[in-house]
Amino acid sequence: MELSNKDLLAIRDLSPEEILLILDTAESMKEISTRDIKKVPTLRGKTVINLFYEPSTRTRTSFEIAGKRLSADVVNISTSTSSTTKGETLKDTGRNLQAMNPDLIVIRHSCAGAPKILADTLPASIINAGDGAHEHPTQALLDAFTIREKKKTLSGIKVAIIGDITHSRVARSNIFLLQKMGADIRVSGPHTMVPPFIEELGVSFMPDMEEAIHDVDVIMMLRIQLERQQHGLFPSIREYSRFFGLNLEKLKKAKSDVLIMHPGPINRGVEIAPEVADGPYSIILDQVTSGVAVRMALLYLLIGKGNRESN
Amino acid sequence: MELSNKDLLAIRDLSPEEILLILDTAESMKEISTRDIKKVPTLRGKTVINLFYEPSTRTRTSFEIAGKRLSADVVNISTSTSSTTKGETLKDTGRNLQAMNPDLIVIRHSCAGAPKILADTLPASIINAGDGAHEHPTQALLDAFTIREKKKTLSGIKVAIIGDITHSRVARSNIFLLQKMGADIRVSGPHTMVPPFIEELGVSFMPDMEEAIHDVDVIMMLRIQLERQQHGLFPSIREYSRFFGLNLEKLKKAKSDVLIMHPGPINRGVEIAPEVADGPYSIILDQVTSGVAVRMALLYLLIGKGNRESN
Amino acid sequence: MELSNKDLLAIRDLSPEEILLILDTAESMKEISTRDIKKVPTLRGKTVINLFYEPSTRTRTSFEIAGKRLSADVVNISTSTSSTTKGETLKDTGRNLQAMNPDLIVIRHSCAGAPKILADTLPASIINAGDGAHEHPTQALLDAFTIREKKKTLSGIKVAIIGDITHSRVARSNIFLLQKMGADIRVSGPHTMVPPFIEELGVSFMPDMEEAIHDVDVIMMLRIQLERQQHGLFPSIREYSRFFGLNLEKLKKAKSDVLIMHPGPINRGVEIAPEVADGPYSIILDQVTSGVAVRMALLYLLIGKGNRESN
Repeated sequence: MELSNKDLLAIRDLSPEEILLILDTAESMKEISTRDIKKVPTLRGKTVINLFYEPSTRTRTSFEIAGKRLSADVVNISTSTSSTTKGETLKDTGRNLQAMNPDLIVIRHSCAGAPKILADTLPASIINAGDGAHEHPTQALLDAFTIREKKKTLSGIKVAIIGDITHSRVARSNIFLLQKMGADIRVSGPHTMVPPFIEELGVSFMPDMEEAIHDVDVIMMLRIQLERQQHGLFPSIREYSRFFGLNLEKLKKAKSDVLIMHPGPINRGVEIAPEVADGPYSIILDQVTSGVAVRMALLYLLIGKGNRESN
Repeated sequence: MELSNKDLLAIRDLSPEEILLILDTAESMKEISTRDIKKVPTLRGKTVINLFYEPSTRTRTSFEIAGKRLSADVVNISTSTSSTTKGETLKDTGRNLQAMNPDLIVIRHSCAGAPKILADTLPASIINAGDGAHEHPTQALLDAFTIREKKKTLSGIKVAIIGDITHSRVARSNIFLLQKMGADIRVSGPHTMVPPFIEELGVSFMPDMEEAIHDVDVIMMLRIQLERQQHGLFPSIREYSRFFGLNLEKLKKAKSDVLIMHPGPINRGVEIAPEVADGPYSIILDQVTSGVAVRMALLYLLIGKGNRESN
Repeated sequence: MELSNKDLLAIRDLSPEEILLILDTAESMKEISTRDIKKVPTLRGKTVINLFYEPSTRTRTSFEIAGKRLSADVVNISTSTSSTTKGETLKDTGRNLQAMNPDLIVIRHSCAGAPKILADTLPASIINAGDGAHEHPTQALLDAFTIREKKKTLSGIKVAIIGDITHSRVARSNIFLLQKMGADIRVSGPHTMVPPFIEELGVSFMPDMEEAIHDVDVIMMLRIQLERQQHGLFPSIREYSRFFGLNLEKLKKAKSDVLIMHPGPINRGVEIAPEVADGPYSIILDQVTSGVAVRMALLYLLIGKGNRESN
């Protein structure tokens, strides 16, 4: 089986079978990173460009390591050094990169839809590494991989997503993916941070966080953008933390085998208490490990199949 | 045949035979980037440093991809993170890099002559990736490669270069190269942007752009630096664009097989209309593809010959 | 013999035998950088992360080249593009990187102790590439390597360290290393820049620089941080230079086979006169060459032994 598109732009585009293919492929990729020699020749001679219009240590490094462990040539471009300061359009930047014959471009951009523009314009494969408040599909895939690893299935799993649902591409991608795979999702957060008709996505809204988490298998905390406070979306960090931060007190209401997730970087003591982030239920660092595996899987599935004989 | 210098500093230093050697070598290099596995071991164990004192996505990426496809180890240094902020002289930076035994240093610098300083100081090969308003030899070589690919020859080809001739290292390098190869060159642009005795270079000046382009084989548009306007070199972008921008209207005056070139990044709607940049005569993206091939050829010719047996 | 720790945090942690092991290993590594093909497969499949919270062309490039010549995958992270701007703690950054299974992290940080925090938290090997005013152990090792190369021994060698002793991690690491190896050390500098009880380290303080250098085998000049002047630590650059800069005049007082060292980047005409920096006694550039060799040795000793069969 293969992915039906040359690109990974959004979870919305994937079938449940494709999601399973990615997760299954990631399982075998994960093993590579545990070897003494963490490198296979699968993508030798392939060129992967990391085109980051927003800074991100974590995601860029994860893709870079994923590419290098598969022996791809990885080229990093970040806006601070890019000619976008010279006013070139995204399409022109993309076409120029395409003219250098890359196999795949990973793009992160503050505008929703930017990866789709590249994908529609260029023959190279495009992976969306986060576009505005739209989607962050590799995050949802690595989250699903991590949940499945711990719970053996995604079907029937109850997940609570807590925080700024409206502005979160992580929340959107996770809702789409988990629903496709048969999970049961509820969200919680301040009214100002939950879209009005969220139920139409098949998701329930529980304004009381303790109610939202009391019977779930997974609590997915979102990072709070502290700058939102200036826009009046929440009155104070202290109040946000009291109502929607996950601490030991609230955790007592949850199931004894609950999993705590967070896409990182975490604001310790704001949306998550240090004792919880570092505690026994936290699988936050497993998520990071899964990230490299899932990205290796995607690189392989999108541009590595023709190389199969060289493995 | 070999290049006579260890460095590529300026088109002025090259003989026509050397230019042909580079272009011919680039032809075989171009094929590598079309393969499924775009990598040859030619420069394995060679160290190439990209030392960029001016930001440039395009040129840095082109050199980085060229080096990696030849299996060189490529190290990027950009000023934003460099110790030049600590006041070290260029010579000292060069000597320090030399002490790490690189084989070749690619340098872009805002001061004319900076690459020559390195070349005179260091045993490593130096490639000038653009120095002030002096030269940008790899750009001229990739332009020549692209013209030759389309027109089969450079000899007798008529070329119009349009724009800010005075401040353009691209224009200078192209004039030197095309003249050596027997092309016929005219320039056009505002009087404030054309050097007074340009004819002494063997180039004709035609203030009327339409006259300049009506019988040429190639129109080479230059990027207008929008910040020049503040220095009073042109009154408004709108006026510049009307007189010296290439649009469909002006293009009607040109030959039916004319080629449109631009070193990029383009200012759409300023020096070139979108319909022209994206139209059938434009070979702007071919130039970018040629860039990787020409840079691979230069890396090979300057530091790869001793490795020939490993190809 | 092997290093007893998984990390290199400080010279203080090393035994004389370990120092000799590193220097001896560096000797064989140095030869690799003189080959036509400067690459061995020793660290193939190993992941090395350069995590730089302070900019440094020289040190980062040295580690990057060292890693690549040993075939490691090297990933650069610099603060300007890092998520530390998002307020993540160092421990969290480290744990997240660890989750991607790197073998070794090189860290430079403005806070003393930062590398130790990583080392205590993470299973990966950590190399301190300079932490605040604490230590810069790889600099001391490359200095020792260079002295030994020229003088055949470190035992009994007389060394004068001149400049801002108080704030210099280079001075501290050198004092610790040279003392362990039996060298005889004196320091000189303005009273405001020498710690009050320096003699307790077994080092003599000679306020008169000419007295300090007259009978030594090695003069180690420190870089003066010009911004210290604003804090009143010295009255003017001119005065500093007159009393503690090394020029030809002062050099006449020194031995005829003295070696001049400087960790770079140098302030020409401030702490060192150009004629001295570029003169016959200067081994400043040898230090840079030694740097690559010493860092290759450390990478090999810390993470390469299990790969020994692949050499």
